Amino acid sequence: MHAELDKLRRDLLEQSVTLAHGNGGRLTRELVDGIFAFHLRGDTSVDAAPLKPVDGELVMTTDGFIVEPLEFPGGSIGSLAVNGTVNDLAVMGARPLYLTLNAFIEEGLEVRLLDRLIADAAQAAGAAGAAVIAGDTKVLRQGEGSGLYLGMAGVGVRRPSLRLGLEHIRAGDRVLVSGTVGDHGAAVLLARQDFGLAGHLRSDCASVLEVAMALLGIRGLRFMRDPTRGGLATVAHDILRGTGCGVQLYEAGIPVSEAARGICEMLGFDPLILPSEGRLIAVVAADTAASALMAMRRHGCPDAAIVGTVTSDPYVALKTELGERLIEELEHDPLPRIC
Amino acid sequence: MHAELDKLRRDLLEQSVTLAHGNGGRLTRELVDGIFAFHLRGDTSVDAAPLKPVDGELVMTTDGFIVEPLEFPGGSIGSLAVNGTVNDLAVMGARPLYLTLNAFIEEGLEVRLLDRLIADAAQAAGAAGAAVIAGDTKVLRQGEGSGLYLGMAGVGVRRPSLRLGLEHIRAGDRVLVSGTVGDHGAAVLLARQDFGLAGHLRSDCASVLEVAMALLGIRGLRFMRDPTRGGLATVAHDILRGTGCGVQLYEAGIPVSEAARGICEMLGFDPLILPSEGRLIAVVAADTAASALMAMRRHGCPDAAIVGTVTSDPYVALKTELGERLIEELEHDPLPRIC
Repeated sequence: MHAELDKLRRDLLEQSVTLAHGNGGRLTRELVDGIFAFHLRGDTSVDAAPLKPVDGELVMTTDGFIVEPLEFPGGSIGSLAVNGTVNDLAVMGARPLYLTLNAFIEEGLEVRLLDRLIADAAQAAGAAGAAVIAGDTKVLRQGEGSGLYLGMAGVGVRRPSLRLGLEHIRAGDRVLVSGTVGDHGAAVLLARQDFGLAGHLRSDCASVLEVAMALLGIRGLRFMRDPTRGGLATVAHDILRGTGCGVQLYEAGIPVSEAARGICEMLGFDPLILPSEGRLIAVVAADTAASALMAMRRHGCPDAAIVGTVTSDPYVALKTELGERLIEELEHDPLPRIC
Repeated sequence: MHAELDKLRRDLLEQSVTLAHGNGGRLTRELVDGIFAFHLRGDTSVDAAPLKPVDGELVMTTDGFIVEPLEFPGGSIGSLAVNGTVNDLAVMGARPLYLTLNAFIEEGLEVRLLDRLIADAAQAAGAAGAAVIAGDTKVLRQGEGSGLYLGMAGVGVRRPSLRLGLEHIRAGDRVLVSGTVGDHGAAVLLARQDFGLAGHLRSDCASVLEVAMALLGIRGLRFMRDPTRGGLATVAHDILRGTGCGVQLYEAGIPVSEAARGICEMLGFDPLILPSEGRLIAVVAADTAASALMAMRRHGCPDAAIVGTVTSDPYVALKTELGERLIEELEHDPLPRIC
């Protein structure tokens, strides 16, 4: 059986994906067995998988991923999809248990590349302690995709009595971020050949599970969110819309890597709207904000910072050396296919 | 609030989807609020949703949907995605509780069409008693999609002691199908302008939940599966590969609608490999096969039939008036974007 799988994989890795890999017959099965099940160790003979009984409250999430290029410094669509789903659960206070993966593969994608991407997904799932228990593959006609789109869903478990959510936020609370913002967005923009730039910037693509679990021990933790699409500015607007309370961000306190700042200046982007894929934003009561910051720094986030205050003003503002400027909700700037 | 939503929807329904609808800012929120949350009644302010405690075993599934055209006689990608996910759970013996939806929308799709498709999804979810509790939208650049791709995941609940699966199948068991096979595949092929045909064939796209739940009461029920991609022939091959036991199908007993048979003859397709999206295949012990057939007919499946026997031969065969012919596993015939 092992030798058979080896041979199947050797053959597959020399191929490109064809429409016949999507017809549900032998080639579909071989692609699933040789690539997806090989890395993800899933049982591919069933359409659905049972969940073990757990002690706690289950939460469920879903997210879609469309990034170009499929591999970028610091990650790939595979690690991005798993970490993105893990992080959606983590900011709800949940530890991920089960993931499912939907792959929309464009005809012509090299199987060798697909193999690396799915290996990345498997590695990220393993690191988060989550099992990929069901999956599906569909093949898109050449020209009707862009290599690979991934849809993920996740189920995690959390303490039932958890008081976490926008509704717990109060004016005076502090806003913390676990590290530099916008590295993922800047790294992906840079990795596109279009710009003809080269640099050492890496995506921050990573799990925030450890730091999120650590923050659950902080009394006064109100709300967590990962600043992905739309960045920190969009999370601030989510808070405004969900609570009626504004956010004042302190420009000087917001950690931005030098490399990301350079890219943003060159390309005319604002790091506050660029996605991060391994950062966490926490809103914490003022009197425990310092403890939360310490917890973040102790749990893998040396650049964590207090970056703002929840206000009773109905707007999002950035406090700069020169005064205060309003930050509007993100409008028409399209940053397509970054996360 | 109601008047505001009305106005938002009126404005949206005159638009096409743009890249800015995917940037995570105001337009993303309006598209989610005005279309997705409007129909699906989901809470769009959170990344993940809690599941209520249940009595039973939870099972989880996922599936991707890429059908062209997006609307076809008898259904649309919206009803197809929900019914497909519901059916994956139903054949595991589970009643669907929660669904999540990932929409990959191509720039340029008319919002009015998107609205109809999501309304179809909501209607199908409601009919199955399932709640869509989380979703995500991404916008694909024009030319890098085909209107709309949907990724769904589902969680359902079943009796923990259920003995259902390929491993329970024995030689001598009977194979039943709940209705005519291949109607979905034939209807979608027909709906494509490419063929220049017209007809009254409708997709069988529907939930099999009721009949699946009824069959759970039949002693001797071994296994259920919905014959989607790859059709009845592929399910027979799944049985062969999973059990070592072959399947002998009786050609005369397999229900095929006259319209589907006509399309197949004209276009050179075999109805045994065409997908159905509202049919169920059951393997049942010989001595309870008649009861199972009665149960199917009583629960909305007047055309249900016993179509084959599990054998100790290591192949799938079709018994015809002239003798027996082997049915090979589906190979290179691509039937792209049907389900």
